[in-house]
Amino acid sequence: MPDHDFKSPRLFVEADLAEGAAVEATPAQANYLLNVMRLGEADTVLLFNGRDGEWRAVLKRPAKKRLAFRPATRTREQPEPSDLQYFFAPLKHARLDYMVQKAVEMGAGLLQPVLTQHTQVTRINDDRLRANAIEAAEQCGILGLPDCREAIRLDALLDSFPAGRRLVFCDEREDAASPIELLHREARGPLALLIGPEGGFSAKERELLRSRDFVVPISLGPRILRADTAAVAALAVIQAAVGDWLPHDRWQHKD
Amino acid sequence: MPDHDFKSPRLFVEADLAEGAAVEATPAQANYLLNVMRLGEADTVLLFNGRDGEWRAVLKRPAKKRLAFRPATRTREQPEPSDLQYFFAPLKHARLDYMVQKAVEMGAGLLQPVLTQHTQVTRINDDRLRANAIEAAEQCGILGLPDCREAIRLDALLDSFPAGRRLVFCDEREDAASPIELLHREARGPLALLIGPEGGFSAKERELLRSRDFVVPISLGPRILRADTAAVAALAVIQAAVGDWLPHDRWQHKD
Repeated sequence: MPDHDFKSPRLFVEADLAEGAAVEATPAQANYLLNVMRLGEADTVLLFNGRDGEWRAVLKRPAKKRLAFRPATRTREQPEPSDLQYFFAPLKHARLDYMVQKAVEMGAGLLQPVLTQHTQVTRINDDRLRANAIEAAEQCGILGLPDCREAIRLDALLDSFPAGRRLVFCDEREDAASPIELLHREARGPLALLIGPEGGFSAKERELLRSRDFVVPISLGPRILRADTAAVAALAVIQAAVGDWLPHDRWQHKD
Repeated sequence: MPDHDFKSPRLFVEADLAEGAAVEATPAQANYLLNVMRLGEADTVLLFNGRDGEWRAVLKRPAKKRLAFRPATRTREQPEPSDLQYFFAPLKHARLDYMVQKAVEMGAGLLQPVLTQHTQVTRINDDRLRANAIEAAEQCGILGLPDCREAIRLDALLDSFPAGRRLVFCDEREDAASPIELLHREARGPLALLIGPEGGFSAKERELLRSRDFVVPISLGPRILRADTAAVAALAVIQAAVGDWLPHDRWQHKD
């Protein structure tokens, strides 16, 4: 049951957060808070850094051109990091931004681009990936930033896949079966999700995936979904069936 | 199990489709096919009109500046229209476009904007709504266009809600319970989904919704979701739990 403060600006900072610390705002944060939000000294914001929970902090103006935050009270504890891993064939710019933001919103704890045969994008801007993850966390009250990994080829991913984790992939040609029942039966324990490129996986890649015993192919219904839609849809079904949408004592993919 | 032709351009037309009919292309379609796709006489495309299934049609050039389609063979039968109704507080431009496209991809059969207390957008461009629905159908191989209705106020929607249909709404303050179990238990039969505005429903609206016995409040997990994310996530869980992602003989929300 979310019980967040929806009103205060929520900002990611790199610095450690503790009572009374002095945290310098970046120029972009200062501009946003002072000129867009029209806040000033003694107003408060929420801060998080992915490690120390969420803090209410008071704005300070140590000099005319500077803005600092002074954390005052911790408003939320740092939650356990999400163990749900998200592998995706990168899309073109705007759709990739969107897909990364959505994956963070939906609770992915690790983001890793995967290069497949039909992947049209091979150069990934890692800073942009991270900036999108931070933006989604700021907007959606998420305190744990996902681990952003560098791109990997599909065959290398499968060859180095850790024992004990299941890899769910959405196979457009999977026979109609209930994805919920499949997840309940075959995807208890640590999970990863793989979303293919707009053109789908090649026949050879599908064969390769299906030959591995840790791979769980699921169907996302009778319609063709775009890759970014499939990402949100698959994450929703995973979280609802075996993930953190379940009552807390029934989470399955936590270690 | 989707088994579509992914390669051919797929276009919506208003005209009836039958073998040998002559269907005039719009100027936009002609420009796209001739100048962007570089197709010409005797090349083929796929056509649908929301009524007559999907047809493979041959391009004809009756004059230098004109393009026509001649339907040759029906490639898919017209499916039953979806009975899943989708009510949504309109968002600002780009996010509304996106949300409408996603709802169509996810199988909504009716789209209706709903005006709530925190809705920031009150003028809805009905043509744009329909154009987005058509674009999503063209791209995702969907043959049934949703019924696009005019905006309605939330209280009027509830007062005129048809008997026998359940209205699922995503309540951020709903206690953590499995949405799948709730849907299995309380949302068999004809369904509608209501997605609120970015600011959420007001306390009064939530009370009003929860006072109606046809309303089923579900939780979408511990994170705050943006409205467009919540739309895809809720539709995915509904389709997977009680909708058309189930094997065909187990669909629940068909009449």
